Amino acid sequence: MTETSVFAPRASTEQVEEGRLFTPKFDADGLITCVVTDAGSAEVLMVAHMSEQALAKTLTTGEAWFYSRSRQKLWKKGESSGHSQRVVEMRVDCDQDAVWLRVEQIGAGACHTGRASCFYRAVPLRQADFRRLILEFRNAEKVFDPAEVYGEKDKAPRK
Amino acid sequence: MTETSVFAPRASTEQVEEGRLFTPKFDADGLITCVVTDAGSAEVLMVAHMSEQALAKTLTTGEAWFYSRSRQKLWKKGESSGHSQRVVEMRVDCDQDAVWLRVEQIGAGACHTGRASCFYRAVPLRQADFRRLILEFRNAEKVFDPAEVYGEKDKAPRK
Repeated sequence: MTETSVFAPRASTEQVEEGRLFTPKFDADGLITCVVTDAGSAEVLMVAHMSEQALAKTLTTGEAWFYSRSRQKLWKKGESSGHSQRVVEMRVDCDQDAVWLRVEQIGAGACHTGRASCFYRAVPLRQADFRRLILEFRNAEKVFDPAEVYGEKDKAPRK
Repeated sequence: MTETSVFAPRASTEQVEEGRLFTPKFDADGLITCVVTDAGSAEVLMVAHMSEQALAKTLTTGEAWFYSRSRQKLWKKGESSGHSQRVVEMRVDCDQDAVWLRVEQIGAGACHTGRASCFYRAVPLRQADFRRLILEFRNAEKVFDPAEVYGEKDKAPRK
């Protein structure tokens, strides 16, 4: 991702952290982590990964594109569901190895299970038995029917 | 991370997505992505990674522990700075390969550069020249002096 990158090359730590040039760092698999929050509610909607191409397409179009590790392909959020995400703001973190999208969620929900957010379960703290940690559903009501949106037979996560 | 995991083994997609058992998925490096937001402001503070041990320590203590990929070691948030994070809530996403911590940030800020959040720069959208994308500083005022907190000579990111 270095010599052939479409983005500016990374320089010193000082420049990466305090500079004004966007120099995203992709990991060994060529991906950068992306957090997506709802620009209105500030709820975390999902965490996904972007390849260089996904990041470039997001920047160009103002709509969220990602790279699916399971399907090993570039995908546009909402390409199956119609539930796309319009980017209100993109931020980058100090060492420029993660991006944060504040989005306007188009359509009912961000999660392929039918919920508004992918984070619809809480993990209990301070429980002794890690093999029996019982999740608690929170804000988990379905806002759309995934069987209707994706089709009954297609169970592959596509968010 | 499968047979020796301290957490429950993963079963069907249906159980992972709709079930009540916590079955976190670690990647090939044994890590899970973690998003940290401020429980008060809902601002995204940072993105980091947890090893199985870091996740277990976070669950047990109610304070945020991570795994540093650059330093290749377990670390407690605030071990150098004193700026620890008390977990108000932990959530897990649909496929259980990312966790979201809502925290009370103890001390001035979450970012090792001295800011409240690591995401203090915005990336401009719809610019043609990807090699010259000029970041815009947002909420970037320093809330503590990193030289004072970490020492002048130690420039390694430790957040």
